[in-house]
Amino acid sequence: MRLETSLHRIRLVHFRVHTLTIFRPGRKEMKTIDAASDLPESSLRSRRKFLKETGLAVAAGAAVLVGCAPTAPTPEQVIKEVEVTRQVEVEATRQVEVEVPQEIPASPWQYVELDVEEVRKRGHEGYYRGDCCFGAFVGILEALKDKVGFPFTQIPAEMMGFGAGGVSGWGTTCGALIGAAAAINLVTEKDLARKIVSELLGKYSVTPFPSETSNNYAVNHEFLVTEYKSDKALPQSVSNSPLCHVSVTEWCKAAGIASKTPERAERCGRLAGDVAAMAAELLNANLAAAFVPAFQFSQEAQGCMSCHTLGDNFAAGNFIQGKGECLSCHEPHQ
Amino acid sequence: MRLETSLHRIRLVHFRVHTLTIFRPGRKEMKTIDAASDLPESSLRSRRKFLKETGLAVAAGAAVLVGCAPTAPTPEQVIKEVEVTRQVEVEATRQVEVEVPQEIPASPWQYVELDVEEVRKRGHEGYYRGDCCFGAFVGILEALKDKVGFPFTQIPAEMMGFGAGGVSGWGTTCGALIGAAAAINLVTEKDLARKIVSELLGKYSVTPFPSETSNNYAVNHEFLVTEYKSDKALPQSVSNSPLCHVSVTEWCKAAGIASKTPERAERCGRLAGDVAAMAAELLNANLAAAFVPAFQFSQEAQGCMSCHTLGDNFAAGNFIQGKGECLSCHEPHQ
Repeated sequence: MRLETSLHRIRLVHFRVHTLTIFRPGRKEMKTIDAASDLPESSLRSRRKFLKETGLAVAAGAAVLVGCAPTAPTPEQVIKEVEVTRQVEVEATRQVEVEVPQEIPASPWQYVELDVEEVRKRGHEGYYRGDCCFGAFVGILEALKDKVGFPFTQIPAEMMGFGAGGVSGWGTTCGALIGAAAAINLVTEKDLARKIVSELLGKYSVTPFPSETSNNYAVNHEFLVTEYKSDKALPQSVSNSPLCHVSVTEWCKAAGIASKTPERAERCGRLAGDVAAMAAELLNANLAAAFVPAFQFSQEAQGCMSCHTLGDNFAAGNFIQGKGECLSCHEPHQ
Repeated sequence: MRLETSLHRIRLVHFRVHTLTIFRPGRKEMKTIDAASDLPESSLRSRRKFLKETGLAVAAGAAVLVGCAPTAPTPEQVIKEVEVTRQVEVEATRQVEVEVPQEIPASPWQYVELDVEEVRKRGHEGYYRGDCCFGAFVGILEALKDKVGFPFTQIPAEMMGFGAGGVSGWGTTCGALIGAAAAINLVTEKDLARKIVSELLGKYSVTPFPSETSNNYAVNHEFLVTEYKSDKALPQSVSNSPLCHVSVTEWCKAAGIASKTPERAERCGRLAGDVAAMAAELLNANLAAAFVPAFQFSQEAQGCMSCHTLGDNFAAGNFIQGKGECLSCHEPHQ
């Protein structure tokens, strides 16, 4: 599309110099200078200069004529006309607006403080649209989209649908964590993002889900959905793991409720909101002051990880990558 | 932001100088100078100079004429006319570029067939820039960006940096799987994406990494990097799990190499390329014909999952979410 506006400016510069000299017997001189001008400021000097020069030239000529008058034949009539005319400048400025695609800014994009409870409700509602990973992601993304607009309008949130059920049903990382982690990384650079995401996984592992806040929203119908999979206050459980498989199984066991039920789905919907809210809390805190991790593993796990960690000594047990509550999967050894 | 450029064109510069000198009676001279020219703005100085010179010449001529008057015929009439007509039309076209956010198309975005080996190399190179998740993601995204352009230009790939080390070092889902899964979901709708991603996790679990192809690229220095963390042919291992923690530990044990070494990092870089290539293969196949899953769990795992699956019968064991080779973590029960 091309938008056009035109600015036209016409400048008229016009001046005229007449020098009329008529000699008649007895008369010495009659001179008329007629200057009419309409000049821009910058031209004044040259006009004056011109007048001066031509004027002087004429005067000099006249002086000579007059000087010669006593000895020369008196002219019957001398008409000198110096006419400098018509300087017409037409300036037409045409302004053409050309639309060019706006480039996305460099990463990370600017985060603005979000209302944690709004994010919780958005995350829960997002779960109803696209499950846990999508839900937690849009809990933050769509809040930023509504508050900031571009560039958050450019992300197709549907790309995070894959994370549902611990990555497409495999029960690996909790999808809500993946969605929230992507949102965190969208607004924080890599190294900081990893610290905040690691903190999120730690807090997740030790937090009872669904939160009391979410349970209350459901009971009071304060979430953004109109029909609830369940509007009961649901049992809580702590997973001690960021894995979907562990998190869901622990909840099912704690609640005595099977995994393919409206209650379990609602539990994961509330958890998606809770995880998005937890991420927003961490991001808000990071806006206020430089982020400082607070999560600590159990003494037992720290004991395991004193040897079994990322390191360069294979014989010492540095052959692993990862962290967590080791004993939730492994038997301890002496 | 507004960018401005200006185009100026001068159309017409025209001036004329008439000098008409008529002597009567006993005419000595009649001179006419007629100059019409098309001059650019920069000729103003020469115009002034010209006027000045001709003006002076006229004055001098007059002086001489008058000086000669006693011996020359008396002029009846002298008309000197200098007429300057200068018409300048300046046309300025100002182009103003207005950056406008482009509306992204609805999800999923259109996939085009990619060169699997190009994707493998891009994924490996991406690992060097931003680790496994980012690497596998850009292996596909940047190939699409280069081949298609918009809308793939709108995704800040850095947002996938969080997945490194099985999500910020926790060793949960292999980050390369998360990055590749996000790329898959970017170009396929939710339900199809989950089938393809699930297939990817299955194939990953039973594939020896790094692939022979990647090992050969490294040995022959055919990857896109100039300096290698290691250019050796590295040992291969099968993880039987989509988890980073299991995948890395199994490789370290198979290779006898610690986890924080250039060799282990290079192994994960090649794996990032391999996983991106595997995803591109699946996406290419899905372009050619409707996707049909092929991956099968082991008989043992299928046995476990005949009860321990997503279901509504808690008592029957339907209290889990997830799938995998159960016995890689759990003891079997009767």
